[in-house]
Amino acid sequence: MITLTSDFGSKDSYVAEMKGAILTINPKATLVDVTHEISKFNIRMAAFTLASVAPYFPKGTIHLAVVDPGVGTQRCAIAVQTRQAIFVGPDNGVLMLAAQEQDILKVHELANPQFMLPQVSNTFHGRDIFAPAAAHLDLGVKIEEFGPQITNPIKPEFTEAKNHGSVLVGEVLHADGFGNVITNIRGKDLPDATALNVNLPKASYRVPFVKAYANAKQKDAVALVGSHGFLELALNQGSAAEKFNLVAGDRVEVSPIRLA
Amino acid sequence: MITLTSDFGSKDSYVAEMKGAILTINPKATLVDVTHEISKFNIRMAAFTLASVAPYFPKGTIHLAVVDPGVGTQRCAIAVQTRQAIFVGPDNGVLMLAAQEQDILKVHELANPQFMLPQVSNTFHGRDIFAPAAAHLDLGVKIEEFGPQITNPIKPEFTEAKNHGSVLVGEVLHADGFGNVITNIRGKDLPDATALNVNLPKASYRVPFVKAYANAKQKDAVALVGSHGFLELALNQGSAAEKFNLVAGDRVEVSPIRLA
Amino acid sequence: MITLTSDFGSKDSYVAEMKGAILTINPKATLVDVTHEISKFNIRMAAFTLASVAPYFPKGTIHLAVVDPGVGTQRCAIAVQTRQAIFVGPDNGVLMLAAQEQDILKVHELANPQFMLPQVSNTFHGRDIFAPAAAHLDLGVKIEEFGPQITNPIKPEFTEAKNHGSVLVGEVLHADGFGNVITNIRGKDLPDATALNVNLPKASYRVPFVKAYANAKQKDAVALVGSHGFLELALNQGSAAEKFNLVAGDRVEVSPIRLA
Repeated sequence: MITLTSDFGSKDSYVAEMKGAILTINPKATLVDVTHEISKFNIRMAAFTLASVAPYFPKGTIHLAVVDPGVGTQRCAIAVQTRQAIFVGPDNGVLMLAAQEQDILKVHELANPQFMLPQVSNTFHGRDIFAPAAAHLDLGVKIEEFGPQITNPIKPEFTEAKNHGSVLVGEVLHADGFGNVITNIRGKDLPDATALNVNLPKASYRVPFVKAYANAKQKDAVALVGSHGFLELALNQGSAAEKFNLVAGDRVEVSPIRLA
Repeated sequence: MITLTSDFGSKDSYVAEMKGAILTINPKATLVDVTHEISKFNIRMAAFTLASVAPYFPKGTIHLAVVDPGVGTQRCAIAVQTRQAIFVGPDNGVLMLAAQEQDILKVHELANPQFMLPQVSNTFHGRDIFAPAAAHLDLGVKIEEFGPQITNPIKPEFTEAKNHGSVLVGEVLHADGFGNVITNIRGKDLPDATALNVNLPKASYRVPFVKAYANAKQKDAVALVGSHGFLELALNQGSAAEKFNLVAGDRVEVSPIRLA
Repeated sequence: MITLTSDFGSKDSYVAEMKGAILTINPKATLVDVTHEISKFNIRMAAFTLASVAPYFPKGTIHLAVVDPGVGTQRCAIAVQTRQAIFVGPDNGVLMLAAQEQDILKVHELANPQFMLPQVSNTFHGRDIFAPAAAHLDLGVKIEEFGPQITNPIKPEFTEAKNHGSVLVGEVLHADGFGNVITNIRGKDLPDATALNVNLPKASYRVPFVKAYANAKQKDAVALVGSHGFLELALNQGSAAEKFNLVAGDRVEVSPIRLA
């Protein structure tokens, strides 16, 4: 099983070229698209997306992620083996957030031309290097056969939320298609809270801390713990991202309020 | 075989998380996306879409549909068995338009934690309840094993077109991506018509009643019977929805004209 | 294996109806979406896209392409057998660019109702004629069984780039989702160039001729040979299509500059 994540969009032929390259090598591969609508060159968004989906896939899944502004330069192509899966893509951090959560066993460079397409372009390693590597790994080729071990792969810079007295200080990880704003503050750091004081760059408000989006009137603001365990700022059937003018990276401060 | 319909969009990780949940339980499942671009929370559009595709899938298909504004509240999770297929989703009407056309045999609640993910969030039952249910149903688990029978599932409110003398009065079901406006007036109620007088909220016009979009000059208006048997208002290679300012729910009146 | 290319978009039920029709006939078919976001009725863009992906799929692949402004009129439905694959779609040129590059063996009309859905609509041959034909071809039915041979299928009009003295004159084939502008000028016609003088309808500039997008500062213009062997005008992490106001069909003139 091979998943695919990229910033290639859904209008062009690029994703299908990768799939054709995989299926030519490995016609029985099961292919699952994660998304190809990552914002162009947004390694952080791709890393967050891949880390969100990887825990839900079966042991042995190959995760291919291609957000690759440095294609054709000296940046390495790598495969990362964890206890759960193998991640394939450029060495720019896109793979490591997901891989770190699964106990990394080893990282190897993809350098062996035997596992690339016969002609490697300078502009599309997704098709010419990464897709064939994923296909061969899914067929059982060992990661060691692809090239030398890498000991210092690039890690993405994600801040962890911090505790300043009674205030938790974090940031926006992602605003999803519903307008729900996912922060890096963990739900388990807000035990027993029934409401929150929220401080944002362009708004400050007090909001009930609830279980479900629909535990408020339509368009009313809520805070809740989302499906990945992180604090979300949301509106019931509305966009918190729009209302509070939030994008990835924005600072978020919350103070829990505990009522008996 | 499992189809997937949702309002999750194509940018986020949610659809892939559902697929991972399914494939972890049932690695050989064939997954077919219907669409994940249903307008957010638009149960009616999802119900129409699912009813459009269900007749074309093989007997035994599992149809998973998640448009779920009430997730985490008291609304039930259900599976609906028909003579042709099994439908899985929230009990808010999204499944019933398609199911009703296939002779409903029984409806059961999805209440058995044995067929859910080990951790059920309050915000993403698509991944934690519906996807695992679909995976288990596709593996052959009987619908009775999921929970108690439900006798009064919620039905969507769709008006049927009506006959007022020589005038057929209906409404817009859907404006598709081409701008073709699909109404709930059935083609078989317009025998022998060669043209129609059309009365819309913001336009009235006479239009030839033809067989194919291209039976008119480019951008000229036509009426025809679309691929689901309903009357469509269209332009040849243009958008009738834009030209006549029509959205789902708008009233449509037509009077057939029969020329020898 | 069956690939699917269309202008049906991703919001409507049309693509899934085609897939249901295929899987009802041929439940084990492997389906691969190329794209369904071809601009409406844009045969040229679909032909270019299909020609880009076809070389990367295994021998024996069935390629289904439905961009079909003439659906329901006298235009033929055809299948084109090449040494490598079979192409299925309307006889309007959409298949021929890809097919021509693979050595065409024969072209047959799809006229045998035995290989269509029982009810054929006038508006959706993708579902009622082309999808069933692809399903049956993938099952091994011979192309001759579908209908009479066609000797003069419609060819798309694509200009080949031309040499006017030291100036290569071509046109824009496609502007991709990154804003990279793919021309019909072949990289092999620019040997040893280290820079290019570029003349466009709305801009003239000199640009370095490089190997990779990232061989320039961010947002700086480059020219390079893209992954299909054609000259591309690009910016590093920016949109050349926007900056130089280019769309498919625009004239492109380049003069190679060779520095020692």
